[in-house]
Amino acid sequence: MSQLETAMGMTIAVFDQYAKGDGNRQTLSKAELKTLLERELPNFLSSGKDKDAIERVFKNLDENGDSQVDFKEFVIFVAALTCCCHQYFEQKAAR
Amino acid sequence: MSQLETAMGMTIAVFDQYAKGDGNRQTLSKAELKTLLERELPNFLSSGKDKDAIERVFKNLDENGDSQVDFKEFVIFVAALTCCCHQYFEQKAAR
Repeated sequence: MSQLETAMGMTIAVFDQYAKGDGNRQTLSKAELKTLLERELPNFLSSGKDKDAIERVFKNLDENGDSQVDFKEFVIFVAALTCCCHQYFEQKAAR
Repeated sequence: MSQLETAMGMTIAVFDQYAKGDGNRQTLSKAELKTLLERELPNFLSSGKDKDAIERVFKNLDENGDSQVDFKEFVIFVAALTCCCHQYFEQKAAR
């Protein structure tokens, strides 16, 4: 597998790993998303200080308002986050 | 690094690796995108039979029509492709 194929496969694997936790294996519940963010992006949520952060992230992610985050919604979130990281490194490199 | 952070970092690394080929290091030219697709997603373009395929992919990717694919355009493409892969595996698992 190429590097890009590996990255795509890993993104799918992360989603599936947390989505299988409860009920619907094809979507992330709020609890599952919280666990995913805490373990996979430990620096993303400020360490428990902002208790509404997860609420806000979830509301933004759950585009169709069904209280579940499906894979499409998740992958758009990861894309947006990757874009932010890329910008950050570009700005850092430009300094 | 977590699995998701690694996947995000790999996506950035792939883009940067091919974008630095010619001229602008922050964007992919048509030639750079062609090399990227051929090496990173060898099964994506049907093996050279359809010569217009790269033209079509490039036109679709180059959202702002500046003949360059920037990181945001690239990452949206990867997200869409990852979504297709996920659907494919879901359907396969459901059979």
